[in-house]
This record gives sequence, structure tokens and C-alpha cells, in this order.
Amino acid sequence: MTTCWVKASDDSGFPVSNLPYGVFSRRGEFPRVGVAVGGQVLDLSLLAANGVLKDSHWFASGTLNAFLSAGPRVWQSVREQLISLLTEPARRPAVLPALVPVVEVRMHLPFHVGDLIRFQTSIEHETNLGRMFRPPADPLPRNWPRMPIGQYGRASSVVVSGTPVVRPYGQLRGPGESDPVFGPSTRLDLSAEIGYVVGGPTPSPHGPGTWSFEDHVFGVVLVNGWRAWDIIAWESAPLGPFLGQFATSVSPWVVPLAALEHARVAPPVQDPPPPPYLAVRRPWGLDLTLRVELNGRLLSEPPFAVQYWTGPQLFAHMSVGGAPLRAGDLITSGPVSGSARSQFGTLLELAWNGRDPLGMPDGTERVFLEDGDTVRITAAASGPEGIPLSLGEVTGTVRPAA
Amino acid sequence: MTTCWVKASDDSGFPVSNLPYGVFSRRGEFPRVGVAVGGQVLDLSLLAANGVLKDSHWFASGTLNAFLSAGPRVWQSVREQLISLLTEPARRPAVLPALVPVVEVRMHLPFHVGDLIRFQTSIEHETNLGRMFRPPADPLPRNWPRMPIGQYGRASSVVVSGTPVVRPYGQLRGPGESDPVFGPSTRLDLSAEIGYVVGGPTPSPHGPGTWSFEDHVFGVVLVNGWRAWDIIAWESAPLGPFLGQFATSVSPWVVPLAALEHARVAPPVQDPPPPPYLAVRRPWGLDLTLRVELNGRLLSEPPFAVQYWTGPQLFAHMSVGGAPLRAGDLITSGPVSGSARSQFGTLLELAWNGRDPLGMPDGTERVFLEDGDTVRITAAASGPEGIPLSLGEVTGTVRPAA
Repeated sequence: MTTCWVKASDDSGFPVSNLPYGVFSRRGEFPRVGVAVGGQVLDLSLLAANGVLKDSHWFASGTLNAFLSAGPRVWQSVREQLISLLTEPARRPAVLPALVPVVEVRMHLPFHVGDLIRFQTSIEHETNLGRMFRPPADPLPRNWPRMPIGQYGRASSVVVSGTPVVRPYGQLRGPGESDPVFGPSTRLDLSAEIGYVVGGPTPSPHGPGTWSFEDHVFGVVLVNGWRAWDIIAWESAPLGPFLGQFATSVSPWVVPLAALEHARVAPPVQDPPPPPYLAVRRPWGLDLTLRVELNGRLLSEPPFAVQYWTGPQLFAHMSVGGAPLRAGDLITSGPVSGSARSQFGTLLELAWNGRDPLGMPDGTERVFLEDGDTVRITAAASGPEGIPLSLGEVTGTVRPAA
Repeated sequence: MTTCWVKASDDSGFPVSNLPYGVFSRRGEFPRVGVAVGGQVLDLSLLAANGVLKDSHWFASGTLNAFLSAGPRVWQSVREQLISLLTEPARRPAVLPALVPVVEVRMHLPFHVGDLIRFQTSIEHETNLGRMFRPPADPLPRNWPRMPIGQYGRASSVVVSGTPVVRPYGQLRGPGESDPVFGPSTRLDLSAEIGYVVGGPTPSPHGPGTWSFEDHVFGVVLVNGWRAWDIIAWESAPLGPFLGQFATSVSPWVVPLAALEHARVAPPVQDPPPPPYLAVRRPWGLDLTLRVELNGRLLSEPPFAVQYWTGPQLFAHMSVGGAPLRAGDLITSGPVSGSARSQFGTLLELAWNGRDPLGMPDGTERVFLEDGDTVRITAAASGPEGIPLSLGEVTGTVRPAA
């Protein structure tokens, strides 16, 4: 890959090998589609209108959904054109008018979420939950190593990074209590996750398997899957967590799978081996390191590479029963936790259900989130030529219960 | 209410006191919004274009969502205009060109489903499940009488009545088995339910309670919430049923709450009394009698009036945590079961988990659904002046696994 002519793009986390898609606006303008490069947003809507970008009538839109629907040939064609435009100095004059400094833009929810699908793909997280809440039973549910365990969520509760999150009311049950009380949650948590963004044509029923992952999943976002553990504790039997997963924040930039080729790694060995419909030909473990910050303090660095279940398996499992997937469906990983405490993806695990409070720079302690707390999750992946790629950030500040 | 001039409308289940909304098309035409009256569909798009219907630019659309979003004042205004048009003989010449015989139209999914929210509101059904699958524990989960228990579903799997349903593949566990096998479900079931269709403005966070049900819920549909119990049995711990609820069929006609005033009844007494946010001022038990038919044989007549949790309570529970509701969200009741066997809403209960096979007219027996089986669910409500209202029907035929 030749050098990008956008200044300082290599150090930004958004080199030309990244080119994530988002929806942005400047004050008083309609939201439209752009890609991040260096500290700039490249206005694809303008490039298309000016004829600089060919075959691209997807971008004068307030969501990525049309582009997501267009499928892998269009994704590849646009990506190749963008790389040419940003690396060939001769194209610079045509492209320059479409570059907007990122500080001048507001980012929007990048796509209209169809269905929200929440998996629990971390064996460490699931084991930690089992140790805390299901002793003395085997901490891992029996079905867990045989298929990805998931549930649906509320698509309308997905918000873009920066949106404040209001502490929810609900029927609560604290640890050791048997009867619920009604009030604001006191066990509010973050959850550091990755989300897969579905695109491409609707898979034909019963057709697709792990091998068509790249035809039907466009890219990934960072996710904070907020949780209210005291609501979850009381409501979850027998249908699973429900209102306790009350909001999901996502990063504004969708990083295409095409940018993550260099981050692909073999996932952990699966024992027992999964059934044939979950067997993977091309490994899609992803060497992403997440960073979880609370009020500026680094809490943990969850390693995504150790996730037990990978994207192609989630996709194949979602498709095996014949129910459709649509462009804009968001498939989340669940909390990303490694084996060390410094790698846990929730406060529940980091403070071990209240047993090990976390010291904060201001001298206070945390076992769960307090009003005013700001959570920031970032992630970096290895890219080509040793230049790391950023997944941007997902942030959110806790507002008091209304 | 004066008499409707559309012939024989009183005997049809679709008198002028009903006027349910749907989306229809004739061959070669775009789908648009209509209401059912007698054996006719009244083309609201045409009435609006001709200026016969005032304040109504919601109907030249392939979904009801714009009209659902418009809110209760518009719903009421349009309903009052339609009743005038259909009862004042002087308006007949203006309206006649917009009447289309129902046999000439194809019905479409009436609205784009935002979030699908599945409750389990029948105490009889939940108790039956507990007796079958959780003995010797108390058949009713402890949280069940304290709040409506629900989960989210896959919105993209909602289809309109008449759409064939394909038997799903999945990891299955039969009764008494400990390890799963992979294959087509052998415990495929129907589930006779009612669905509430959300409309109106998005409720302000933390604001709405049971009392604003009628501002935010437009009407009801019939629902068949297909289930694969052998998939559910293996996948459900700890996050609840997931892929085993693989398709949801809905009736094409959305009956407005305004048409159901005469069917309102007091729901069963709730003991213990629910917390204040679930207390109801205006009762919305609904005296609907469902009829479940399998290949033309009447299987059961589930009474909706005995549902423990009612619409306003489901609405308030969904809103209490601050997560939004949107026009087009579909809130389902779960299986409607009365106390008698002739009132059960699933085959699982009717054949008591395989113990009591059901005899069919052709001499065969059923414990679950076979390929080729056709399920039809209908419902009637009492209407004004003793004229019953129909909720239409939801039908579906089981296709073999692909």
C-alpha cells in the first residue's frame, strides 16, 4: 500500500488501511456518510455527487443501511476507490474539498439497528458469572461449549457514543435478598464488547454457514452493553435478562472486516469440537485489545482474541434455524474478559461482586457505577505494515435516575 | 351508531364498529392502507387522494407505521370520519369507488416491526409449563406474580398470516435426553396469542405509566408464536428461549383499541397486588375468545379475559426503566391458556407434553405439528349493540425442513 497523502494519518489510528464508515453532520447540515482518515472525515456523499466516486449512490443518507445492504462487491469497489483517491497525489485536488476536520462534525448512530442480538462469547466471563452466582454447580452451563448462547435485545435502546445514560428504575434484588424493592438500580455496570454489523443480501433460509460470514457481515463496532445487575437478578428466571440490559452504546465508526485481515488470528481450540454447522474454515479470531477507562483511570485491557465463539460461528448459529438476518442487525459479543483480573470486561468481575473495590484517582472507591461516572472504551488492532488501527471509542456518562 | 350502508357488514365480523387497519394490494398495484368493512376493503389511500378523507396523508404507504406514529388524535379523527362516511347514505357515492372486494386483494405484513417483545401473561400457561418441566418446584416462578416476565424476540422473523412456516433445524434435546442432536425440530408447536401494536409519540423516558396505555398503543393483532420446544429445551439456560422461537405470524388486520371498548372487562384479581407503577386505573382485560384450529379441527377456545397481566401493565413495565418504545413495536401476550384443557393455547399443553395425543379427523394423532399441518387462529370480541367483532385470522402451514 502506498502512502496516504492525508497528513499524520498513520499515527491517528485511522490510516488509509482502516477507513471506517460513519454518519456525520456539520452544524445545520443533514447527516451523511463519511469515512475517517487521519483527523479528517471524508464526505462520501460529496465525492459521489461530484462524480469522484463511481457506483456509489448510498451515501446521501442519514444511515449506513443502504450501503450495508449493497453487499460485498460494492463494499470492495468503494474501498478500492477510496484507497486510490487517498494515496494517488494526482487525485488530491478532487478529494480535498470533501475532507472535513473531525473536530467540526457531530457523529450520529451509524445505522438503523434491525435486530439486536446479544451473545455471551467469553468463556472467562461466563465462568466468572457461574462462580459468583451459581456455586457450587459447574460454573459453565452444560450447553455453553456446544453452541453460542445468546438472546435478543431492544434495538431501540442502541445509542451512539457520547449519549448520556440514565440510571434505570426497576424491581431490584440485591445479593442475598429474597424480595425485590422498587427504585433506581444500585448495581449499574459497564460491559466492554465488540459488535458485528450485518450487511449484504438477506441470506437464503437454511443456506448460509460459517463460510459466508464475510458476505453477510460488513464490519465491527465497539459496544458498551450497560447492565443493571440488581434488575437482572430478579427478572431473569426463566426467560433471561430483560429490562436490566436497558441501553447499548456503540462507537460511531464501523470498521470493515476488510480492514481487519491483519488482525485475524486462530481462536482458542474448542473442546468439545462444535457440530459441523459451526465448524470454521477460515479463522476469524480477532487480535483486538480493548481498553476500559472509568473517569480517566485505565481499569482493564480485555483481549478479544481469546473469545471462545467467533463471528462466523455466531452468524451461522443465527442462520441455522431459517430465521432471516437483515442489513443493520447488530450481533454483540457480550462482555470481553480475559483470564487475568486486569483483563475483565465488567465492574462486576473487576470488583468481584463488591468484594474487591476499585480505587479511583480521587480517593473514592467503586464497586459499581456512580452518577456522573464516565466510561470510555477504546480498542486497537494490528494493521498492515505494523501500523495499528483504531476502532475509535464508545463513551457514556451516567446521569442520575429521573 | 347508525347503520352502515355496506351490505351485510353486521354478520361479517367487520361491522362499522370494528374498522381494523391493514395493508393490501391488488395485482400489479402498490401496497397501501385500507380498513376492512363487511367483505370489502376501503382504500384509505384513494379516499385521501380524492379529498374525501381529511387530514390523512398517512395511507399511500406499504406499512401502517406513519399512521401509527401519528398518535391518538389522528387515530380518533380518522375513525370518526370513516364512521360518518360509512353510515351517512349521502356520502355513499364518494366512498363507493374506494371499496374493493376482499377476495380481490392480497394482504401484507401490516407494519414494519420495530422491536418484538414477548411476554408470558397467562398464569395458567406458566403453571402448566412449571408442572411439566420444573417439578417438584412451585410451578410458578417467584417473580411471576410481581411483574410481567418477558424477553425480546427477532423482529425480522415476524410474517403475515398465510406465510408458510418452515420446520427449523437446530440443536435439539428431547425429554429425558441429556445430550443434544442436530436436526429438524420434532417438537414443533403453535402458540395462540394476542399482540399489542405500539403507536403514538415515543413516550418520554421515565414518564409513562399504565394510564398512558391508550396514548401509546394503537390496537391488537392475532399472533401465532411458533415454537420448537426441543430447541428451547437445550438452549434456554441461562439466557432464555432464543432460536426455538423462530417465527411469529400475525393477522393482517390491526383492530384499534377504540373498537374494543365493549370488550373491556376487569382482569383477574392480582394477589399480591402489583407495585404502584403497575397499578391500573382503567381496566383493560379483554373479553376475546380465541379459536385454535388444526387442519380444520377445532382444538381449543382460549379465553383472553383471564390473562393475569394486561396491556397497560405490559406497557408500563416496558417503559419503567427508561428505554424507548417506538411506533411498530409489537408486544405479544405469550400463549393464551384458560384453566380447562379445552382452553389451552399450545399443543404442548393440549397433548400434555405427549402424554395425551389429540385425535384428528383423518384418524391420525398429534402431539406436535407435522409437515403439511395448517394452523388457523381466529378471535371474536363483543362489540356495541351485541354485534360481535372479528380479529380476522392468522394461518400458517408447516413446510418440511429445508
